[in-house]
Amino acid sequence: MTAPAAPETPAYLELARRHERLHRFEHLESIAGWDQAAMMPPKGQEARAAALAELGALMHGQRTDPALAALLERAGQEPLDDWQRANLREMRREHRLATALPTALVEASTLATSRCEHAWRRLRPANDWAGFLEVFEPVLDLAREQAQRLADHQGLSPYDTLLDRFEPGMRSAELDGLFSDLRTWLPSLVSQVRERQAGEVVLVPQGPFPIEAQRRLNLEMMRRLGFDFEAGRLDESTHPFSGGVPEDVRLTTRYQLDDLMQSLLGTIHETGHARYEQNLPWAWITQPVARARSFGLHESQSLSFEMQLARHPAFLQQLAPLLVEHFGAQPAFEPGNLQRLLTRVHPGHIRVDADELTYPAHVILRYEIERDLIEGRLQARDIPAVWDESMRTLLGLSTLGNERDGPMQDVHWPSGYFGYFPCYTLGAMYSAQWFAAMRRERPDLDAVLARGDLQPVFDWLGERIWSQGSRWETAELAQRASGARLDPAHFRAHLERRYLSEN
Amino acid sequence: MTAPAAPETPAYLELARRHERLHRFEHLESIAGWDQAAMMPPKGQEARAAALAELGALMHGQRTDPALAALLERAGQEPLDDWQRANLREMRREHRLATALPTALVEASTLATSRCEHAWRRLRPANDWAGFLEVFEPVLDLAREQAQRLADHQGLSPYDTLLDRFEPGMRSAELDGLFSDLRTWLPSLVSQVRERQAGEVVLVPQGPFPIEAQRRLNLEMMRRLGFDFEAGRLDESTHPFSGGVPEDVRLTTRYQLDDLMQSLLGTIHETGHARYEQNLPWAWITQPVARARSFGLHESQSLSFEMQLARHPAFLQQLAPLLVEHFGAQPAFEPGNLQRLLTRVHPGHIRVDADELTYPAHVILRYEIERDLIEGRLQARDIPAVWDESMRTLLGLSTLGNERDGPMQDVHWPSGYFGYFPCYTLGAMYSAQWFAAMRRERPDLDAVLARGDLQPVFDWLGERIWSQGSRWETAELAQRASGARLDPAHFRAHLERRYLSEN
Repeated sequence: MTAPAAPETPAYLELARRHERLHRFEHLESIAGWDQAAMMPPKGQEARAAALAELGALMHGQRTDPALAALLERAGQEPLDDWQRANLREMRREHRLATALPTALVEASTLATSRCEHAWRRLRPANDWAGFLEVFEPVLDLAREQAQRLADHQGLSPYDTLLDRFEPGMRSAELDGLFSDLRTWLPSLVSQVRERQAGEVVLVPQGPFPIEAQRRLNLEMMRRLGFDFEAGRLDESTHPFSGGVPEDVRLTTRYQLDDLMQSLLGTIHETGHARYEQNLPWAWITQPVARARSFGLHESQSLSFEMQLARHPAFLQQLAPLLVEHFGAQPAFEPGNLQRLLTRVHPGHIRVDADELTYPAHVILRYEIERDLIEGRLQARDIPAVWDESMRTLLGLSTLGNERDGPMQDVHWPSGYFGYFPCYTLGAMYSAQWFAAMRRERPDLDAVLARGDLQPVFDWLGERIWSQGSRWETAELAQRASGARLDPAHFRAHLERRYLSEN
Repeated sequence: MTAPAAPETPAYLELARRHERLHRFEHLESIAGWDQAAMMPPKGQEARAAALAELGALMHGQRTDPALAALLERAGQEPLDDWQRANLREMRREHRLATALPTALVEASTLATSRCEHAWRRLRPANDWAGFLEVFEPVLDLAREQAQRLADHQGLSPYDTLLDRFEPGMRSAELDGLFSDLRTWLPSLVSQVRERQAGEVVLVPQGPFPIEAQRRLNLEMMRRLGFDFEAGRLDESTHPFSGGVPEDVRLTTRYQLDDLMQSLLGTIHETGHARYEQNLPWAWITQPVARARSFGLHESQSLSFEMQLARHPAFLQQLAPLLVEHFGAQPAFEPGNLQRLLTRVHPGHIRVDADELTYPAHVILRYEIERDLIEGRLQARDIPAVWDESMRTLLGLSTLGNERDGPMQDVHWPSGYFGYFPCYTLGAMYSAQWFAAMRRERPDLDAVLARGDLQPVFDWLGERIWSQGSRWETAELAQRASGARLDPAHFRAHLERRYLSEN
């Protein structure tokens, strides 16, 4: 693809040059992808897919260029500073991910997942588990084959190789510990909280809430949360996301006329992702070391905004007058009621509708199933029974016969995303740990927040997380940021404080 | 860049494959360019420019691949059908354009024009002609050198090589004839019309016109003009344009609160461009033969919409109630007044503000100057005097000492676009010729239009122009569409009818 570097060019510089080039093409891929979701009219689809496929093939060629192995090897012998060495580590990781699997296997998986995902859109509403099983089993078989090949290559367990794609360095042995800890106290905490909330009166805000007013509120909220509008925008899409590039972050949301909270909380969540991206280490922005550290770390930022901040009593004190300003006064906008509304615990079947307290149960259940599926200890046909048993233990709900709202509810597995679900709860745990560390360092934090000043939170996250990019591996990043590696005690303490003692 | 084709692959197929690939990359370039103008926040600029430069370098490499010459040669010996042969002709033309100039010369020009255009943005408001001359002379010198090299290569005059980039097949010998014909009757026609209009009462619509209502009106107008919203959109940008790709056309406009006509007529103009793009020959859409024929032909479509249709009394009869519906009634919206307003002739200094009748004067003047500049018969420092003389002869206005609104008013020359201006008036002439042909074939055309039925116009343009792409060279396209090559008599007849006899 590229002329080989002259022998005297340091291999590291040649690699950096190639990664800068990839960064440029990823820019176009990302903006075209955002456009596809937020702007593109339907008849543009075919040409867009073909254009992105062409670009994807180009980048695949660059990422698997046979010259890379020798360059990476040579660069390891060259004198590098700490950032360069971390950058080289991330380059190696990308190279491993791009070259570990035979192209034929990747293509077979792409075909199977695309067929399964397509069928799933029809089979889920029809609650057709048997039909789903037919298209899902090939996906699972190919994911197992990929995981086994990666395992042979990397000396990890099959599931760990998949987990490592999303959460580098995380292993199921550690997750088992984290999640079994959660399993011991979460169900009883849910019961306690439900009892405590049983007598509460919670007013639901009464719409309609004009879309234009919701949009203005979201923009104002993003401003207060420090989003840089000179380097990003907010638009609409069916499935909200944080896209674009670090230099130009594109958030999307979705509006419902009778529910202002969905769009507002979604926007707050995406703004957390956005601030991470907008504040990655600028001097390295074209290089792998500037990337956000992991999916779990990314989620720890969106949940720092959506859960730690946006449900904080001080924040709701600030939010209440904003709601009145945009939609007129109503009793539901009283801060205490907002607090009760946004911390209401109600076990349900659907993960994406879950509250802060029951969400981890949905994740633990999926993690245990996908781990056993990939490791061959569980077969696809047995999922509904295991799902039902776990839902009953964790949340006291049965899903048997209702697979539509059980194992068929998420797009992840039909798309071949095994190893992704744990990141959601890792993010929740990390965000609790960040706020615990902030409070240790700054005991007046809640008093400062109560004055409406969020800056200390942004400063802490910016210095400890955002500006570090992939400078450190995840465990070391956590250690440096908060003095310890991931410890679920902070998450438990946060939930107990919020749900058993606040107010 | 690409593995060479196996010897048994027909060269034509290999070329078609390569052009399809280029079409995919042009798609990304075009969408990213639209985004840059219509969506991108300011801090995204640097990364976007770098990404587009990387893509540009990639495409340049593909367009100048040394293997192309032999493939084009071999394909000429292969059995091809008529469309394929036309496609090969367009491939040859693209190859010639991509390879005719040494890279160093192209890069020097890019540097000089970018410096000149940047300085122009400051020097024009300051009316600093001497300062402009310093940055413009290198641009002109390099354009002359390019033109001379192309002339040696192609056996054309230097200016004709530049003209041919925008209007393939057009030569200054033909333009001289067309424009000297115009010169003989245009100034006196302007005088006659001005006398005739002297006593007219013209009411200017009184704003404010809310932007949202203007937007709705524009969308409604685009619908009536047949724009396919499943394959395109309307947005806003500082400089309105028709961008995107044939499969997904992106129009932009600009709103002014006190002037609804600017945005409305601009949108109608761009919709003409858009319908051409949306109706190019679909089966060939990835290939050069599917491209719009030329800049002049493209302009003939936008002007068919903006001038031939939108100033037609039948059209204004339909427009009047639409205006009332969107902005409330006012006397200025009476159809007769709209007609007077939109056909008001008023010689002025600024090309982009010119009316239909005086616009060609601005083009003739620029054409004669740029032709003589490139051919070395005129020096840059002498432009103001020639400009002034020509403005006085053609429009009775002097510009001496006011170079800001004289030779410094357009971005074309600072950007190195010599040979582009004539396309505007070629477009006006062609559009008059198309409507003359339509009326010959369908004498009831005006009666049909008066019933609000625009379909016959779209059918004619679709069949004769849009669907032909670059199937024919321009002169033959004109011949097949209208029975004759370009004949300025139709333009004169159109203007005389509209400005001396209608109403």
